[in-house]
Amino acid sequence: MLWKFSQRAQAQKSSVIREILKVTEQDDVISFAGGLPSPDTFPIAEIQSAVNTVFASNDVYGALQYGPTEGYAPLRQWIADYLSHRDQVAVSADEILIVTGSQQALDLIGKALIDEHDKVLVESPTFLGALQSFNQYNPEYIAVESDQEGLIPESIDDELAKSAKFFYTIPNFQNPTGRRLSVSRRQALAVKTKLNDLVLVEDDPYGELDYRGQRLPALYTLARENTVYLGSFSKILAPGLRLGYVVANKLFISKLVQLKQASDLHTPSLTQYIAYQIVSKNNFLSQHIPKIRQLYSTRCQYMLHSLAQYMPKEVHWNEPEGGMFIWVELPQNMNATELLREAISRKIVFVPGETMFAQRDKTNCLRLAFVTVPEEKIDRGIKILAEIINQHIKK
Amino acid sequence: MLWKFSQRAQAQKSSVIREILKVTEQDDVISFAGGLPSPDTFPIAEIQSAVNTVFASNDVYGALQYGPTEGYAPLRQWIADYLSHRDQVAVSADEILIVTGSQQALDLIGKALIDEHDKVLVESPTFLGALQSFNQYNPEYIAVESDQEGLIPESIDDELAKSAKFFYTIPNFQNPTGRRLSVSRRQALAVKTKLNDLVLVEDDPYGELDYRGQRLPALYTLARENTVYLGSFSKILAPGLRLGYVVANKLFISKLVQLKQASDLHTPSLTQYIAYQIVSKNNFLSQHIPKIRQLYSTRCQYMLHSLAQYMPKEVHWNEPEGGMFIWVELPQNMNATELLREAISRKIVFVPGETMFAQRDKTNCLRLAFVTVPEEKIDRGIKILAEIINQHIKK
Repeated sequence: MLWKFSQRAQAQKSSVIREILKVTEQDDVISFAGGLPSPDTFPIAEIQSAVNTVFASNDVYGALQYGPTEGYAPLRQWIADYLSHRDQVAVSADEILIVTGSQQALDLIGKALIDEHDKVLVESPTFLGALQSFNQYNPEYIAVESDQEGLIPESIDDELAKSAKFFYTIPNFQNPTGRRLSVSRRQALAVKTKLNDLVLVEDDPYGELDYRGQRLPALYTLARENTVYLGSFSKILAPGLRLGYVVANKLFISKLVQLKQASDLHTPSLTQYIAYQIVSKNNFLSQHIPKIRQLYSTRCQYMLHSLAQYMPKEVHWNEPEGGMFIWVELPQNMNATELLREAISRKIVFVPGETMFAQRDKTNCLRLAFVTVPEEKIDRGIKILAEIINQHIKK
Repeated sequence: MLWKFSQRAQAQKSSVIREILKVTEQDDVISFAGGLPSPDTFPIAEIQSAVNTVFASNDVYGALQYGPTEGYAPLRQWIADYLSHRDQVAVSADEILIVTGSQQALDLIGKALIDEHDKVLVESPTFLGALQSFNQYNPEYIAVESDQEGLIPESIDDELAKSAKFFYTIPNFQNPTGRRLSVSRRQALAVKTKLNDLVLVEDDPYGELDYRGQRLPALYTLARENTVYLGSFSKILAPGLRLGYVVANKLFISKLVQLKQASDLHTPSLTQYIAYQIVSKNNFLSQHIPKIRQLYSTRCQYMLHSLAQYMPKEVHWNEPEGGMFIWVELPQNMNATELLREAISRKIVFVPGETMFAQRDKTNCLRLAFVTVPEEKIDRGIKILAEIINQHIKK
């Protein structure tokens, strides 16, 4: 049988990294590779209690039946109220679409906006999963310049901004760099994009994971009309529920609803009912999120300590104020993908940064995830990694 | 803000029918419109017990964490074993992909196979949700001829079969016609498609709802290499779980996995773990499915009885052997969409058939769903519908 795949399907390549990482899922491997939240943060008792509440009432029929494409109405309303309070801005339930994880939002946004060869602005590096979603619709990527403070709004050409379909950005504790965009740059970016009618796609899965609980203003509060905000329950409840949401102008939401209906009809009702039961009770998140911040902050400090202790001076990294990742820059002539092969032979894994650059033009970076690794393993893993890097530098 | 939607998004239209039906969700309306399974069939106690089992073990961490795009391995294995036994054919777990409802399978298949203006064969009429999914990739539809026994394989031109990307068919108790394809036509279709390397997409959500439990051979067992089989838990467990699966050649599955990863990463882990707990215990489906068949058969007989009692002789319908739908043909000059407006004013709703024809060339048909309507309401609703139709005929 010869399968006549579409051009879009032919262009999808199996990730080499994913294949490499597949062989490393044994127990004795120290993995800094995954973007998984720590299972220690899963509110297991609350989820089970939420299930019991749903099953003890007539809600159970709604939780098991087909539901509206837009999502479970009480959950949409809860999100609207939560954001209105958190971000000091009026959000209404009909500006919200529930999605099967933020990854689905990225797919739907690509579907809604990208025609072949359309220009899409991205940070450099950016979230690999976003590139994979958008790739399906074959855009032309333009990398926006950035430094340690994140993207540089002034570097965006006005003509380019006018002609591009959207700018995809993760302003808080970016994946993969861990960087947070400064307030002044947020303001400049809002002005720049409003001026040029450029759609901002603000992906914010890590915004709540600010170690000191000092939230900076979300872009959608600064550029309301032209921003599509993506929120997620994956890092504050549990990713296995696959629950995210989109906040945008009603017209844009109604287009996403049409596309979502054709894509999976609706997000599972049961998981939406469960999430609603948990978050709507006793201000649950206000007690739960600080615990996650505490755990992640501690592990981050631990990894930073290990890096400072073992890494040669030629290696640089950032000190994140939140989130799940540290971004490491090796000397220019080193290749992180080659380093990974060696690291695997010593039972250490991480993700090389190359595939996270739309143009794949930088090969000496790597991403370290620290939140799922116990502290003694962080120390051991970083020590071994430093040894391997040191051997390369001395060659 | 002017949204610069993609061409594909601009082409998506809000369904007029959906808008009409939205206003009819009051309690006093008798709805023959929905394609919803009866909530009386939801195995509520078993689902709750399954949740408790998952939460009582270490499985809970897997159920709440990110999981493989392919789906939960034990569930894939269970499906492989179930189908191997049911259909007397060897199916392996790596030929199976778990999807977020069959609707997602339709989207992924469109993504994987359709380039703009590619030919796609469909039954006429066919499932509206499939047309909506495929429309996103802008194919050219070719309607395959059919009669009361379903599609007519000999009517498919060999050259057309060679050049088309796939043929989408629902062989069992089709949506919307309720028809089941005969064994001889299944065999002829298998020969025809194998000869021409034509991909068959066999959508089978209703296959288990055979009132007499006499399953006819699935197309994928007759044309294994070139058939993509879609199964669903929506009609035998609960649609709110959003769980379906694809069975196909490993190469095709691996392409769908890449596309699914970019579309929603994976189907929620929790719902997969729950479904696995239910179906893997004590041969659950072998006791549960007969109850659904019994209920649906009774309601079907009831509606057939009401139709025979009230409808004028100019109106025709089929007598389904399974599934959830009866297909009604009005006199040629009657328009079912106009009839719907009148019916709504008398608090009866149904779905007009027009949008279910790829070419929208037939306006005198309608679909009646009977499984969610209590028997006294079936009688009252059909009586009123017959009155309205009678008035039209006498005009």
